[in-house]
Amino acid sequence: MKIRYEDGVELAAQLLQKSGLDESKAASVARALGLAEAWGLPSHGFLRLPIYLDRLDAGGYAADARLTTTTDLGALLVMDGGTGLGHWQLSEAVDLAVPRAEQFGLTAIAIGNSGHCGALGVYAADAAERGMVSLVFSCGPAALPPWGGTGKLLSTSPIAAGFPAAPKPIIIDLALSTVSRGKIAEYAARHEPLPEGWATDSAGTPTTDAQAALEGLLAPLGGAKGFALAFLVEALTAGLVGPQLSKNMPDIFDRDSLSEPQRISHLLVMIDPSRTDVSGDVDAPGQRLSELVAATAVGGGRAPGSRRFTPSEVHPGTLLEIDSGLLKRLEERA
Amino acid sequence: MKIRYEDGVELAAQLLQKSGLDESKAASVARALGLAEAWGLPSHGFLRLPIYLDRLDAGGYAADARLTTTTDLGALLVMDGGTGLGHWQLSEAVDLAVPRAEQFGLTAIAIGNSGHCGALGVYAADAAERGMVSLVFSCGPAALPPWGGTGKLLSTSPIAAGFPAAPKPIIIDLALSTVSRGKIAEYAARHEPLPEGWATDSAGTPTTDAQAALEGLLAPLGGAKGFALAFLVEALTAGLVGPQLSKNMPDIFDRDSLSEPQRISHLLVMIDPSRTDVSGDVDAPGQRLSELVAATAVGGGRAPGSRRFTPSEVHPGTLLEIDSGLLKRLEERA
Repeated sequence: MKIRYEDGVELAAQLLQKSGLDESKAASVARALGLAEAWGLPSHGFLRLPIYLDRLDAGGYAADARLTTTTDLGALLVMDGGTGLGHWQLSEAVDLAVPRAEQFGLTAIAIGNSGHCGALGVYAADAAERGMVSLVFSCGPAALPPWGGTGKLLSTSPIAAGFPAAPKPIIIDLALSTVSRGKIAEYAARHEPLPEGWATDSAGTPTTDAQAALEGLLAPLGGAKGFALAFLVEALTAGLVGPQLSKNMPDIFDRDSLSEPQRISHLLVMIDPSRTDVSGDVDAPGQRLSELVAATAVGGGRAPGSRRFTPSEVHPGTLLEIDSGLLKRLEERA
Repeated sequence: MKIRYEDGVELAAQLLQKSGLDESKAASVARALGLAEAWGLPSHGFLRLPIYLDRLDAGGYAADARLTTTTDLGALLVMDGGTGLGHWQLSEAVDLAVPRAEQFGLTAIAIGNSGHCGALGVYAADAAERGMVSLVFSCGPAALPPWGGTGKLLSTSPIAAGFPAAPKPIIIDLALSTVSRGKIAEYAARHEPLPEGWATDSAGTPTTDAQAALEGLLAPLGGAKGFALAFLVEALTAGLVGPQLSKNMPDIFDRDSLSEPQRISHLLVMIDPSRTDVSGDVDAPGQRLSELVAATAVGGGRAPGSRRFTPSEVHPGTLLEIDSGLLKRLEERA
C-alpha cells in the first residue's frame, strides 16, 4: 500500500523516540529510512525498523549513545559511536566534515563502535547537495566468503560516493555482493524465492531459499576482483577503525543476539571539488563532472544516481510503497 | 626468455634516458616497469616501453616535465604533471605524502596533466612498505561504454590500495574492466585470439580479435555496478583533477597521436593507520589487518597481494620472463 513520505518518517521517528532516541536523533534516523524508501530501496527502509527497535530495547544499540572524539588531527577525525545506531552518526559526520573539507581540501571522519547506518547513498547525497564530493564506506555482519574459500569473512561491503554535478548530483551507492543482504531480507519477509545465483546456504550450496540465504553466504560482484574490492572496504573500516572485524559482528537479523552491540565502523572521506583542479580553477571540476554526465546520456546510458530524488527534492507528500503487513506491525507498535 | 631484474631495469632506464629523462626519473620509471614484470603483470611492464619512448621522442610525453604545485592546503596537494610520464610523478607523490599523512592523519595528492603511470599497485606497495595505507586512482584513454549505451566513455578505471599487514602488505590492484587494456595489448602483440567475453569491436560486436578489441570496447566488471565504480574512478581523477575527461584522451596505442599529450590525472590518498583506531591504539589497526589476512587463509582463500613480492623483496637477480622479440627490439634501440 501507499504511505505519504511525511507520515512514514513521522511514524518511524515516533517509534525510535519510544525506544529511547532523543527527538533529533530519531528524526535523523527516520529521514534516512524515508529517503531509502523514496529511492526505491525498501531493503534499507522501514523494513529495518522492527529490528532496530528490538535491538534498541534489548541494548544492542545504545539509545543514549553519543559520538565522542578519539583523535582529531584536523583533516582526520576519529570518533567512537558508543554502540549507537549509525544513521544519525553519519549525518553528524557530514555536518562535521563540510567545514573541515573547506579548510583542508579533504577530510576523513572515521566512526568506530557504531551500528547499522542504512543506505550509504543518503550521506553521499547530503554531501553533494552541500557542494562536496564524498566517499562513504561501511561494514557489517560477514556475508561473503574468502574468494576460493569458505566461511563468512567480509560484509557485503557497501560503498557510496557523491559528486555535485548538473543537472543532478552523481550518486554511486552499491554493495560489493551480487545483491545486498537487505534485498535478501526483503524476499525472506515476503516469503518469496530468490533468483538463482544470488546466494548459497551456510554450507556453500547455491540456494533460492531466502531464509537459508540470510543464514548463508552471498557471492561477490564479478568474482575475484569483487572480492578484492570488498576486502578493501573491510580493511578501510573494520580494519583501520574497528574495534572488530566483520566476521565477529553479530548478525542484525539474529534474534538471539539482540542485546549484543554490533560495533560496526564507517569511514567518510570528503573532498572540496573547488580546490582539486589541476589549474586551480574553482569551477572546472564541476563543469567536467557535468560534462561527464552529459556524455553518458549522449552514449545512451545514464549517470549513476540520475533517477534518484535528491534529498531536497523529496516532498512531504511523496508517496512511498510499503508492505501492508509491515505497516500494520509498526502502527500497532506505536 | 629470461632476463635478470637488474638487467631489465638497467636497459629500460638507459632507453628512457636516451629519450631525454634525467637519470633519477628514468630509474624511477624503469623500476615501476620492472616491478610489474616481477609481479607477473607484463601488460604493465617492458611491453609499454617502445610506445613510451616513441611518445617521449614525439613530444607526447614531455621528457623534461616537472611536477609543479597548483594548490597546497596541507592535507590536499594539487600538482601539474606538465604532460610527463606518470610513474616518477606518482613515486614522487608517495614521497611527498608520507610526512603529510603523519602530520594530518590523511592526505591526498592530486596530479593532473600527466601521463600513463603503469601498474598502480607499485605505489600502493611502496606506501605500505613505509607503513602507510593508500588508495590510488587513475584514468586513461576511454575503453568502456556507458552501461546500456555505446561509445567510449570511461577508462578501464584502475584502482589500487595498500595496507601494511603481517606477514605481507595487503595489495589490491585492479582495473574495473573485465580485463585491462594492457592484457589485450599483450594478446595483440603475440597475435593470439582473446578469450570470449572480454571485449567488443568498435561497433560493439563481441570479438576475440585482440587488435579489433584494442580499437573497440571492454566490458565493465560485474555489469551495472562495475560501470558505477568505473564512473567513480573517472569522477575522482579526470573529473575532479583534469584537465580533461578520459573520452578526450589520445589512445596510447594510437601511432597517429604520438605527439599529443594524454593529460591523464591521478589521485593518491594516504592514511596513517596508527591514527585511525576507534580507541586511539596505535597498533590495533595493523593487528586487525593482520587478523583479517590470517582469517582469509583459514577459510581457504588468500588476501589480495599475498603472492606478490613487496618492492623490497625483489632482488637484482630475480628472473623476469620477457618476450624475446620485445627484448631484441629494446636492445637494438639501446
